[in-house]
Amino acid sequence: MTSSPGTTTTAAYAATAPDAPLTKTTIERRALGPRDVLIEIEFAGICHSDIHTARNEWGGTKYPVVPGHEIVGVVAAVGPEVTRHVVGERVGVGCFVDSCGECDPCRTGFEQHCTQRVVATYNSIDRDGNVTQGGYSRHIVVTERFVVKIPDGLDPAAAAPLLCAGITLYSPLKRWKAGPGTKVAIIGMGGLGHVGVKIAAALGAEVTVLSHSLSKKEDGLRFGAAHYHATTDPQIFKDLRGSFDLILNTVSVNLDMDRYLSLLKLHGVLVELGLPENPLSLRAFSLGQNDRAIAGSNVGGIPDTQEMLDFCAAHGIGAEIELIDADGINEAYDRVVASAVRYRFVIDASTF
Amino acid sequence: MTSSPGTTTTAAYAATAPDAPLTKTTIERRALGPRDVLIEIEFAGICHSDIHTARNEWGGTKYPVVPGHEIVGVVAAVGPEVTRHVVGERVGVGCFVDSCGECDPCRTGFEQHCTQRVVATYNSIDRDGNVTQGGYSRHIVVTERFVVKIPDGLDPAAAAPLLCAGITLYSPLKRWKAGPGTKVAIIGMGGLGHVGVKIAAALGAEVTVLSHSLSKKEDGLRFGAAHYHATTDPQIFKDLRGSFDLILNTVSVNLDMDRYLSLLKLHGVLVELGLPENPLSLRAFSLGQNDRAIAGSNVGGIPDTQEMLDFCAAHGIGAEIELIDADGINEAYDRVVASAVRYRFVIDASTF
Repeated sequence: MTSSPGTTTTAAYAATAPDAPLTKTTIERRALGPRDVLIEIEFAGICHSDIHTARNEWGGTKYPVVPGHEIVGVVAAVGPEVTRHVVGERVGVGCFVDSCGECDPCRTGFEQHCTQRVVATYNSIDRDGNVTQGGYSRHIVVTERFVVKIPDGLDPAAAAPLLCAGITLYSPLKRWKAGPGTKVAIIGMGGLGHVGVKIAAALGAEVTVLSHSLSKKEDGLRFGAAHYHATTDPQIFKDLRGSFDLILNTVSVNLDMDRYLSLLKLHGVLVELGLPENPLSLRAFSLGQNDRAIAGSNVGGIPDTQEMLDFCAAHGIGAEIELIDADGINEAYDRVVASAVRYRFVIDASTF
Repeated sequence: MTSSPGTTTTAAYAATAPDAPLTKTTIERRALGPRDVLIEIEFAGICHSDIHTARNEWGGTKYPVVPGHEIVGVVAAVGPEVTRHVVGERVGVGCFVDSCGECDPCRTGFEQHCTQRVVATYNSIDRDGNVTQGGYSRHIVVTERFVVKIPDGLDPAAAAPLLCAGITLYSPLKRWKAGPGTKVAIIGMGGLGHVGVKIAAALGAEVTVLSHSLSKKEDGLRFGAAHYHATTDPQIFKDLRGSFDLILNTVSVNLDMDRYLSLLKLHGVLVELGLPENPLSLRAFSLGQNDRAIAGSNVGGIPDTQEMLDFCAAHGIGAEIELIDADGINEAYDRVVASAVRYRFVIDASTF
């Protein structure tokens, strides 16, 4: 199907308009450059961001768009100067596929914050001027620096969501030092939250889930949470006051921030991973009390992504997934929007 | 004037009602307990909080109230079990005079965040049930743990404001690692800000002042700032985008937080030291970009206060002060409210 130095024609699913279902198509992947890797995709996770982009809910979608930034596959070919990967190796690609490589963030392993240009895995202008197309496809070409290794022992389908959901949670857990002796709360038990529970527990933290209901309590405890509370019960905000070193908010709605900040102990940090529609509103007093902080966190760099995958392999962590065929994408989208998935859809790429 | 175990009758200035000027009076200081220190006050700084309390602008003022929590004096007598201080030693007292001593924050030197009870230096219920009275007075009795040493080489009048303004700036500069190779911005060049410039520069950071005008630029550069900008110039928000590791906001008005957050580089932190009337409003995106954080900081604990004073002595740092007699307090209050002081009023306590 591929013949370097030629391009690769490959099957994909694309959205062609905001209100159109995704449909089967073929796209061209670029000819392999010296440092490029051609990946035969095995699995592609469905992230809520894919839906926002496919439906142009954030604006700026360039149609047709092939979403997908939770990609696992096998190296099918490599450019002549590739040193990091070999044909036959199982690899992954996450939310971005290029950056300048020279600025401070790039040089320190935070390529997602490149000061020059981050090229997102889809709907982004690539170095060659073309629009990137993502992982709902049978093949993809990515420069080797942005390809990570999937360690043996990780189930490849369950590993796919780690490339976005996993690193999104791992990165702040690492930065803010979750580990033995620390108490971590996760707000929300969806695609992001459930992976956060597993990773935080594996790091040795005492994990509490704060969910809108107790419907997933059994799962939460099985994933490693020590405690599970429904936030509809006002008593928990009294009982848990000043309890946590770290709170990760995975919910994209506007919460009462002062109420959640009050749950942080001395020097505690709340990391806002959701992107709610309206600005966050909080009283300065809520931060001054206990010298608290509220922080942002945007996925994670390539070194941390590799570290996260190795960590997950060592601890037997994968996402909880529902494996679907390509023709189930549109139904899956509706169920993601309705929060009716436990916990992440992954597309079997052999069905593209 | 004092005769342990009796109480001490001492001169003071008190507010008796929200709209009344402070007037001369006498108050009783408690008899020395085993671990108490009687201090003959030499200097007392005027903090804006004193005015808010005297005028009941925060509510809850118990009249009559003697404000003052920037206190420097000399030990006049000690209780029988005092080991930390000796008669004749120059000492200081800051914003609080007691805490439980047993909770995690107390045991780790963050007494200001005691989970049981922090006793503020004035307008607070003391361990004995009485209301505390502050430093606008000739004498004060404080338990030894909350009395710090004023090192030789610190001008005692200029040291007084360090007990509140100094530690308020030192504490976040230390926590967020200001030092050589870091870029620190200070918003506001008043009582807090000008001390922040001096301390941050002495720590080795490259300091930028962001002030509403350039009227204090010469002072700022003399205090150690490398750069000084007027925030009325919109161009600076473009030029300084992604520049700072740390921004300390000393201004108690509601700023455009997204605009200031945009000035932070990767992993940069904005510390909110002001307590504006309305909630802070900021977009989650402003935090996610560059993995930024916004943090609170409430004065500092006793170990950090001592460390700050030793640091200031080693670097010849004192507040810039205007020394006044006790009968000038009311006029000074009006000038503080009008921001017409460079930079801190200090009362000569021999004039009480």
